[in-house]
Amino acid sequence: MLRQKANHTNSNEAFSYLTKKRFWFLTFYKISMNKPKHKCEIVITFGDCDPAGIVFYPNFYRFIDRTFHDWLRQWGSHDAVANRFDGLALGLIDCGAQFHHVVRDGDILEVEMQLSDWRRKTFRVEYQAFVKGTLCLTAFEVRGLFRIIKNKIRAADISPLKDFIAP
Amino acid sequence: MLRQKANHTNSNEAFSYLTKKRFWFLTFYKISMNKPKHKCEIVITFGDCDPAGIVFYPNFYRFIDRTFHDWLRQWGSHDAVANRFDGLALGLIDCGAQFHHVVRDGDILEVEMQLSDWRRKTFRVEYQAFVKGTLCLTAFEVRGLFRIIKNKIRAADISPLKDFIAP
Amino acid sequence: MLRQKANHTNSNEAFSYLTKKRFWFLTFYKISMNKPKHKCEIVITFGDCDPAGIVFYPNFYRFIDRTFHDWLRQWGSHDAVANRFDGLALGLIDCGAQFHHVVRDGDILEVEMQLSDWRRKTFRVEYQAFVKGTLCLTAFEVRGLFRIIKNKIRAADISPLKDFIAP
Amino acid sequence: MLRQKANHTNSNEAFSYLTKKRFWFLTFYKISMNKPKHKCEIVITFGDCDPAGIVFYPNFYRFIDRTFHDWLRQWGSHDAVANRFDGLALGLIDCGAQFHHVVRDGDILEVEMQLSDWRRKTFRVEYQAFVKGTLCLTAFEVRGLFRIIKNKIRAADISPLKDFIAP
Repeated sequence: MLRQKANHTNSNEAFSYLTKKRFWFLTFYKISMNKPKHKCEIVITFGDCDPAGIVFYPNFYRFIDRTFHDWLRQWGSHDAVANRFDGLALGLIDCGAQFHHVVRDGDILEVEMQLSDWRRKTFRVEYQAFVKGTLCLTAFEVRGLFRIIKNKIRAADISPLKDFIAP
Repeated sequence: MLRQKANHTNSNEAFSYLTKKRFWFLTFYKISMNKPKHKCEIVITFGDCDPAGIVFYPNFYRFIDRTFHDWLRQWGSHDAVANRFDGLALGLIDCGAQFHHVVRDGDILEVEMQLSDWRRKTFRVEYQAFVKGTLCLTAFEVRGLFRIIKNKIRAADISPLKDFIAP
Repeated sequence: MLRQKANHTNSNEAFSYLTKKRFWFLTFYKISMNKPKHKCEIVITFGDCDPAGIVFYPNFYRFIDRTFHDWLRQWGSHDAVANRFDGLALGLIDCGAQFHHVVRDGDILEVEMQLSDWRRKTFRVEYQAFVKGTLCLTAFEVRGLFRIIKNKIRAADISPLKDFIAP
Repeated sequence: MLRQKANHTNSNEAFSYLTKKRFWFLTFYKISMNKPKHKCEIVITFGDCDPAGIVFYPNFYRFIDRTFHDWLRQWGSHDAVANRFDGLALGLIDCGAQFHHVVRDGDILEVEMQLSDWRRKTFRVEYQAFVKGTLCLTAFEVRGLFRIIKNKIRAADISPLKDFIAP
């Protein structure tokens, strides 16, 4: 509660790379994220950063992927869930990220995730990540249930998966 | 030339995760990429892959970032270019990727990049990556020239940068 | 206390890759580590693992490096410590690791570190890492204080550093 | 041939972190490496480097592991070789590395590997890596053939493997 408020107070700083206009829609976006499904705290370490002294951006995808897998652990593990539905993996089909504020060695990144937009073969995971209440990252993943069908990897129907993990 | 044709021949397989309809627009997209600015060949190794036996997806961002930096080497290095314009880095503001086909240990990933959409403070880099002519990845990065202004990192005007690297 | 005992109980399993004889000296080694300087708990995630389903071994070095940097945070950060002594970094000169037991997605790796063997230009950091009391990894780093001297990076005298971080 | 000579000429610079005495034995070591089994050229990229502007040291293990897997490709892949001998992986038991010279963004690292010291359950892979003829890295891996025996991963007898890959 307090933290949500802090975010609003800091929002002038939050999108500091560019003019704020570009991200006005995030105000609405944040509202839809106010009940995160899962949170994961990641301490940024020296080796996560690049010669510019900030997190090397592919690592942000490692962090959100970690958050998703951390959430799956309530059912054992990613493997346990994928196997339960004869899948190889809950694999990636689409993803994206916006970087609003630099993140550095020693920062504690709080990643929040939320499920959204279940379709027949895909579902969407939304992420927001904060350092001390400042929004640093918004991201999403579109995942499917990868199954090996006739020696090819294909996205399977996910309705049984939805009933299980997001009833 | 031959390779572009091969892509079309293989396009039935190319978007095998999902129904093809989802990616019909890629047909047009590919046309706009037919003169890549730079190509980079990446041999996928065991350690790039995850327990599902396919490339761990954050690594695809490492590959496209590598391609961008490889292209910058014609002016010395990323550092040389950033320094020339009083910048800390050509940093990331936005990015995204779609995964059309699995990539595995031993695959030779051919990454093609193209610049597009220069704005006042950002430019866009488009990527396509193929294995043996099959489109496996489309991706983009929106980058800015990060400069330290009054102890904050901000995106600077990039018109001098554009004149230099994409006249 | 309980945990140390657990280690001894499990020690038959601990070096399961090879005959136990090879690691008899670890019994003594463990004694010297019974007062770790610092501990760091690392939750292994899917993306840390390779197609064999076990941690991709270079990542173990990321974990011990993280532990070392985590310990340095009591003085601000690695950068703060290095800068205080006109150094670029507390860089690596030598390192090594033995893998005693596989580590997998979901395992909680408890990394313990200890300083040892201060010399004029180098110091040694010893690591042990456990999963549920089973020794999985022993490792070491020999680090120096890298300083830029006449455009070259050289290991500087570390006695002032020792007085500061390990008096 | 020429390159070997260049190494000797540069050897004053080669071990620049410390006094040269520490590495006198490398003179002999180099002799034993004069017929590398396999070479792999790795272009260092921005994202391989850390905030000190030099390669983040765990990445050197990624590079030598890549070289080993690249060598295995003559028999299909690591998987093909491991499967042929009912193994899960040619996994790591022990490893180590010495860092003689910094490696940076844009450097072309030439990694040479050589097999040595075949024992009943392990074999050793030696590495040397150069940038423009300057020795930057020496490293080794002790690997075994990991096999799942009664639900545990154990190092198996490797004599059939030796007959196959290093007759």
